Amino acid sequence: MPEVSLHRPYPASEVSSWHFECDVAVIGFGATGACAAIEAADAGAKVLLFERNSGSGGASGLSGGEIYIGGGGGTDAQRAAGFEDSTEDFTAYLKLAGGPCADEAKCELYGREALNHFAWLKGQGVPYRGNYLPGKHIEPTDDSTLIWSGSEAAAPFCDKAKPAPRGHVIQHMGWGGGRPLVDVLEASARAKGVEVVTDARAVALVADGAQIVGAVVRIDNQNRFVKASKGVVLATGGFVFNDDMRRKYCPETFKLNDPIGDKDDGSGILLGLGAGGEAVHMEQFFTTCPWTMPESHAKGVFVNVQGQRFINEDCYHGRVSRCAVDQGGGKVYVLLDNAHFVQPMDFARMSIAGTGETWEEVEAELEMQPGTLAHTMNFYNAHAREGRDPLFDKRAPILTPLDQGPFVALELNFESSYFSFFTLGGLRTSARGEVLGRDGAPVAGLFAAGRCTSGLPAWGHGYSSGLSLADCTFFGRQAGRTAAQG
Amino acid sequence: MPEVSLHRPYPASEVSSWHFECDVAVIGFGATGACAAIEAADAGAKVLLFERNSGSGGASGLSGGEIYIGGGGGTDAQRAAGFEDSTEDFTAYLKLAGGPCADEAKCELYGREALNHFAWLKGQGVPYRGNYLPGKHIEPTDDSTLIWSGSEAAAPFCDKAKPAPRGHVIQHMGWGGGRPLVDVLEASARAKGVEVVTDARAVALVADGAQIVGAVVRIDNQNRFVKASKGVVLATGGFVFNDDMRRKYCPETFKLNDPIGDKDDGSGILLGLGAGGEAVHMEQFFTTCPWTMPESHAKGVFVNVQGQRFINEDCYHGRVSRCAVDQGGGKVYVLLDNAHFVQPMDFARMSIAGTGETWEEVEAELEMQPGTLAHTMNFYNAHAREGRDPLFDKRAPILTPLDQGPFVALELNFESSYFSFFTLGGLRTSARGEVLGRDGAPVAGLFAAGRCTSGLPAWGHGYSSGLSLADCTFFGRQAGRTAAQG
Repeated sequence: MPEVSLHRPYPASEVSSWHFECDVAVIGFGATGACAAIEAADAGAKVLLFERNSGSGGASGLSGGEIYIGGGGGTDAQRAAGFEDSTEDFTAYLKLAGGPCADEAKCELYGREALNHFAWLKGQGVPYRGNYLPGKHIEPTDDSTLIWSGSEAAAPFCDKAKPAPRGHVIQHMGWGGGRPLVDVLEASARAKGVEVVTDARAVALVADGAQIVGAVVRIDNQNRFVKASKGVVLATGGFVFNDDMRRKYCPETFKLNDPIGDKDDGSGILLGLGAGGEAVHMEQFFTTCPWTMPESHAKGVFVNVQGQRFINEDCYHGRVSRCAVDQGGGKVYVLLDNAHFVQPMDFARMSIAGTGETWEEVEAELEMQPGTLAHTMNFYNAHAREGRDPLFDKRAPILTPLDQGPFVALELNFESSYFSFFTLGGLRTSARGEVLGRDGAPVAGLFAAGRCTSGLPAWGHGYSSGLSLADCTFFGRQAGRTAAQG
Repeated sequence: MPEVSLHRPYPASEVSSWHFECDVAVIGFGATGACAAIEAADAGAKVLLFERNSGSGGASGLSGGEIYIGGGGGTDAQRAAGFEDSTEDFTAYLKLAGGPCADEAKCELYGREALNHFAWLKGQGVPYRGNYLPGKHIEPTDDSTLIWSGSEAAAPFCDKAKPAPRGHVIQHMGWGGGRPLVDVLEASARAKGVEVVTDARAVALVADGAQIVGAVVRIDNQNRFVKASKGVVLATGGFVFNDDMRRKYCPETFKLNDPIGDKDDGSGILLGLGAGGEAVHMEQFFTTCPWTMPESHAKGVFVNVQGQRFINEDCYHGRVSRCAVDQGGGKVYVLLDNAHFVQPMDFARMSIAGTGETWEEVEAELEMQPGTLAHTMNFYNAHAREGRDPLFDKRAPILTPLDQGPFVALELNFESSYFSFFTLGGLRTSARGEVLGRDGAPVAGLFAAGRCTSGLPAWGHGYSSGLSLADCTFFGRQAGRTAAQG
């Protein structure tokens, strides 16, 4: 009997009996898998959804339930708050956010379709209050809908695409909207006849020649064979919990210690590679340290161990954090004055590294050379008072002088502070959700979406909140629909 | 008849007749392929070497012919110049140079074996004058042997491994020692009975089940089948001339415009992937702008468009250049005073962007804000006069005050200046030269070395001259020997 392996499909000719039969088998029950299953069922397919855990969730269930949506003149929430949002600006921002890794076809398709996707989400039952919450938030602490969730209003993005807030959060009191989001999608999937098999971990694909025709799932310590006549959709998430893959593909992340996700071990990526797919942009990762909490800290100034600024701090907190991790010396500081400092959240594990009545005193407490940090802050303040940042083009109202002592430097240490991170690289797929082979042609019968693919959130330095769930839900749908078309 | 493709091996059962038969087929006739062929022949194998061009060379033939060698107390050239070089320090440096991408097993094996490898090279007929040339050189302009070719004497490397010069250059007058190096290796290979087939481009591997048993080469527009009973060695170079692969795996390089190599189109990487291998660290690339020429420019100070320094400029020119390319704003400046400025080499395409009697005047000419570049240089000079660099730990004698006006800022523009680059990512191989599958086991019958693999020069920020040829020649030998063992 051939070996059952993530690394090569099991030959269909060796399957003696099928334990499950369906048109479309979806692997993984986060938002991606749920959306794929819903669309496949809507297209008339018999859908089985396999999940290694005992219930739905995945990394989506741990998220804020925020989806990046715009274009087409704006969503109802955007328009009600006075934000027109053209498809051109929205698409341009998606491409900027993808940086050198942007998948143009995906940006363009989602750029055109995001408003329809929003309507679809509502159609599944996802509730939105519809209001706008101004300010800098990681997630709303109430049940608000629309927040600024990226670098839209910050240079250089704002010079290339007219900014608008685009983070749309499920109506849910407080953080953690991802769980109710998945619940709504699960209910919709089940109502459409999707059958869910839990505690069932995919351990191999099954191929008939070059065509993927099923999967092997591990249930109760036994291999069970799943026939999927139209195809298999991989929705298994990234590889942040696979140290071996991280070492080979994304070793920068070993600087950091707080991977987030839910058993994201890269198994779907390995399955896809073994079937002839290719993985791209595997070195890319998202990271953030929640330095903008409390919100007044969003007006802080970052310096590296040389006492130099390195970013316009009005961009997305994750972009600031990602650029911070590029700095040498193992740590950076966020500088605050008495008008803005509040005790940071414990969970951020940021410590007070220096204080002083003047920036010179802070500089000395940090054992930096005279004329470094103090010069940086005096220069910054002199220009901030004039409303400009000639070095990094930080903009008002975030641009604020920090000149009301006493002053404080909070240390963000890559090893000991809370830098959450997850991986962004994955299988290369078409905008229709087909896994693409190394020769550019689709791998027959194999589809994928979400963080086991490289999608909208392709570039760590351009990540914006809501991009990953936008990618998971929208391209999960594409993968499910394309699979169902057989 | 099955398709002949880089992306999947051709079934041996479909081969009607073999046009060539050998024990070991080597693909690619740069230094890697030559060394693999020599070792395989020495082990008693019948070796055929296929090269797409009309003669040997590859990227090796375009190089300086410099090989990174040390450890074991030092080579004859090192010891004659007074440099002891322990295996521990040498190995530690190799690992530091590999950074987060270091392949520990390869660093350790080469760390132990480099001196024997040097003797082997001499045994093939590679001549070395044996002398030491002090100073900062990209390549010797005479026929000297030993130069400083990395960041050994610079922070943070020098704090973690006792520095020694380790670049060993073939005896050859002027630049371009790579060509005669390949000539010597070619002569040795031919003398040992290696048969060379030129104008023969590999277009597929041939497999019998999971075992690689040959290759398909394109000769006179016809597919020719090569039987290699013991295995195939891929020695085809990187992928710097494959835009599609660069876009998928190494998109940062699109900032730059001067790829170097010789038809390095990634074909060997694709062949290996198609046979079940995996490619790692594909985002890594070497780049350098020859800013240390003339040599007095090595004492220059780099600033980014914010007027900030970002590196200790006494490290390897390629490390400075690679860190430069990380800076925003599309360009950096190298600052020089009258004591050090000489007209730069035309081919570097660096332009004079600003001059002045004072650093304040240079700052103004560059349209930088008062208190940026001038502050940087006044701070730098004040400490350089004391012999220290509190920001980046640049060391004497490169650390020099730049205070003899007039002053000049040379622009290194990523788009228009000469930033040569080549790729570093490739197939994952064992230290024995076996191509490793995604499951960690060797792909039977398939071996690889050089820039179609990820090897000693794994990390762009840690590259040192001679690392790539060390990797090509030494691990080319391992691959050839392991292949011949069958």
